[in-house]
Amino acid sequence: MSTSPRLRSLNIDNINPHVRKAEYAVRGELAVKSEEYRAQLASGKGSDLPFDDVISANIGNPQQLDQKPITFFRQVLSLLEYPPLLEKEDVLLNQLGYKKDVIERAKWLLEQVGSVGAYSASTGPQGIKESIAKFIEKRDGHPADPSSIYLSAGASSGVNTLLHIICAGPKTGILVPIPQYPLYTATLSLLDATCVPYYLDEANAWSTSAESITSALTTAKEAGTDVRAIAIINPGNPTGASLSYKDIESVIDLAASEHLVILADEVYQTNVFIGKFHSFKAVLRDMQKKNPGKYDTVELVSLHSVSKGIVGECGHRGGYFELCGFDPEVVAQIYKFVSISLCAPVIGQCLVELMVNPPTEGEPSYDLYKSERDGIFAGLQSRATALHKAFQAMEGVECGPPQGSMYLFPSITLPQKAIEAAKADGKTPDAFYAMKMLEATGVCVVPGAGFGQKEGTLHFRTTFLAPGTSWVEGVARFHEGFMGEYR
Amino acid sequence: MSTSPRLRSLNIDNINPHVRKAEYAVRGELAVKSEEYRAQLASGKGSDLPFDDVISANIGNPQQLDQKPITFFRQVLSLLEYPPLLEKEDVLLNQLGYKKDVIERAKWLLEQVGSVGAYSASTGPQGIKESIAKFIEKRDGHPADPSSIYLSAGASSGVNTLLHIICAGPKTGILVPIPQYPLYTATLSLLDATCVPYYLDEANAWSTSAESITSALTTAKEAGTDVRAIAIINPGNPTGASLSYKDIESVIDLAASEHLVILADEVYQTNVFIGKFHSFKAVLRDMQKKNPGKYDTVELVSLHSVSKGIVGECGHRGGYFELCGFDPEVVAQIYKFVSISLCAPVIGQCLVELMVNPPTEGEPSYDLYKSERDGIFAGLQSRATALHKAFQAMEGVECGPPQGSMYLFPSITLPQKAIEAAKADGKTPDAFYAMKMLEATGVCVVPGAGFGQKEGTLHFRTTFLAPGTSWVEGVARFHEGFMGEYR
Repeated sequence: MSTSPRLRSLNIDNINPHVRKAEYAVRGELAVKSEEYRAQLASGKGSDLPFDDVISANIGNPQQLDQKPITFFRQVLSLLEYPPLLEKEDVLLNQLGYKKDVIERAKWLLEQVGSVGAYSASTGPQGIKESIAKFIEKRDGHPADPSSIYLSAGASSGVNTLLHIICAGPKTGILVPIPQYPLYTATLSLLDATCVPYYLDEANAWSTSAESITSALTTAKEAGTDVRAIAIINPGNPTGASLSYKDIESVIDLAASEHLVILADEVYQTNVFIGKFHSFKAVLRDMQKKNPGKYDTVELVSLHSVSKGIVGECGHRGGYFELCGFDPEVVAQIYKFVSISLCAPVIGQCLVELMVNPPTEGEPSYDLYKSERDGIFAGLQSRATALHKAFQAMEGVECGPPQGSMYLFPSITLPQKAIEAAKADGKTPDAFYAMKMLEATGVCVVPGAGFGQKEGTLHFRTTFLAPGTSWVEGVARFHEGFMGEYR
Repeated sequence: MSTSPRLRSLNIDNINPHVRKAEYAVRGELAVKSEEYRAQLASGKGSDLPFDDVISANIGNPQQLDQKPITFFRQVLSLLEYPPLLEKEDVLLNQLGYKKDVIERAKWLLEQVGSVGAYSASTGPQGIKESIAKFIEKRDGHPADPSSIYLSAGASSGVNTLLHIICAGPKTGILVPIPQYPLYTATLSLLDATCVPYYLDEANAWSTSAESITSALTTAKEAGTDVRAIAIINPGNPTGASLSYKDIESVIDLAASEHLVILADEVYQTNVFIGKFHSFKAVLRDMQKKNPGKYDTVELVSLHSVSKGIVGECGHRGGYFELCGFDPEVVAQIYKFVSISLCAPVIGQCLVELMVNPPTEGEPSYDLYKSERDGIFAGLQSRATALHKAFQAMEGVECGPPQGSMYLFPSITLPQKAIEAAKADGKTPDAFYAMKMLEATGVCVVPGAGFGQKEGTLHFRTTFLAPGTSWVEGVARFHEGFMGEYR
């Protein structure tokens, strides 16, 4: 507690304690340090640094690195930003390489939103919600209702909305996978609710098991926690793991019998290298069809985003969530909550429409779209494979084959001397290792502690977005040196 | 309390009670009804309605109505969305009407952000923050520090951030003007903090007085509330009132002696018809200069946005806030909080840069920019004047001359019979009146109760954004009929 005379209204001891408690390592100390290095290099004052570039492998931010935007998407957005271009159709078509379908889509989107500079309805314009519903119908083979769809500023904003509704106080518990993307634990801290961790099975390719969930649930209930929801990240972040159809069925079964809202964070649904993506919505509807009446009141939120996948447009902050099975009175409160922040960025909402309704075979922009999309996918997969191969050759590093999302999450076994040096430095061993890696190579990763990990294990998360292989070689060299120094 | 067997996890009685308590009338029952009318008219099923158009005078949403975007801004944004256009400079210049400075600015902004599809640093790219600092320096005649500037998704998101930091529990009190834009009361409800209302002086052109603030503060302190901050909306929403230099000085004096954070919501700073806008920052720095040491620890947050002003680009969700005088440990928590939602929409951040750094005299886009800007300002003022004139002719309606922002906030005196009819209908009299107006004319306004008003008074807020005068005549006719019916 500070003892100096009170000068200001606010100090670290009297601000919102829940903000203070929240942790968000993805943009924590390492990220701040990496930005300092970047600024140093940019200003020409970084000549004494042992690297020429900072590689931000801490954030899934494709366009900061190699990834180019999809041409069709961006051409449409350029017309939405400056509609008078639509009056110069011949210039667009003959001199600027725009296709007929780009122009048509821009006109159609402008009909839906009026101007991208105007607020939209709080849940999004009807026409965009109808496009999303069609996408879901096609993906799942089951109908979707546009009025159950809410446009959001990326999936983060959707998660924030839903957790705000669900969490009624410190006794409210939410099941969160460990390791997890720390948005969940951070938001639960802010809301002063209880995180109920359930562990993913590293030995089994980071799979999700009903047993592990049930055991976490039982412990929490015994402690008096009112567990109301389960968050599932599928495909996983940071793990990349995809749930099988059968595992999804067991989660839904458990949610039905235990009255748990399912928060299905499905933002990596197109980033799957092994197996096939199954949406929670599709499996739920299948189960409802097979067992009339039994699953009607299962509450499911399915979240998606333009930030990840092949689109990689994080800067546009576009996303949506779909609600199934919610009580209409609760839905009215969700509407009110989202209306307080007015609406999601409208250009981002338009980008969501483009993502869910891309050019199809036979349309003028299709060939280019397809080649760009496939190229991005193949590039992600080949970089993931190269990185995985490098990890396999490193002493004390274990990492399963890349499964999907944008990340690898290797485990590291560090020498006792390194663990002691970390302690002396006031850091967890994985944070110490990651800081040394940044200082030596300019590569910024996130220590496993930022996502949660089983006690006694150490990991780090790295994206496989950065181009080339020299940064991977740099990491391998650093690792060898680190192990040599602390062995 | 619901007595049905538990089917779902969530019901209206067990969700977050603070969400349930929050009120946000700007997009409430009337807005929902108006959207239903709009959909009915669009589908051709509205032939039995007594109007052909819905006029959304409930939301300050300029581009939904008459206002055209500024050409320079949108041309730059179109290039940011599709940078390959920059390779066709001759087509841009000679066939599409883009000027040299549009191209230069787009290139410069792309250097700052990389891609508008990439996440930026959580507080915004350095170059954009430097532009904002230059704008503030020029506006205020005092230096500004780019590292104290935080880009946000509109000003709403900035207010949300600051209130999250300040509010530590139910005992935390925030002074809020009444009437106010209901974002403040809604967010305080969500945070379970205490709203300490201070009344603006309607008889005195809705001015802010230190006496009224002091009296509210004293009452709150006596009740055990830890009052930590004061929100000031200048120019006012819904009132349009601009604070004088002297009034700002007294607020700062009070804040200094009472240790109150000043939340200066200055989003309407260019919408001033009477008097001159003074920023809190400028006045604070003047006072610091005149009284060395005395005001150094005054904590001020100044918020701005691309949504209002002449820009009117609400759909882009761009804004920023500047911090002065905060404890560095508190600043670190603000950084962490904003990093959890990753970053503000990047195209919106670029638009902030364009707003604060528009074409200047002698630059190729200046003449058009100036004529558009002046045209928008003059249009706002003339529509405000016409609307005010109409109100003056209405029985029982009182309204001071338009002062600024985008709103008029007339008081209405309704007949006793109308007040009883409202009661029978389960509505406040102003909500009843506004619903009748919507049903008769298609014009959607917000009842005064949504902003707060002195007990026994009734008001409504209307924007003066809608073009033409026929809707104003419709409102006047409705009012006459309403008074006739209930007199």
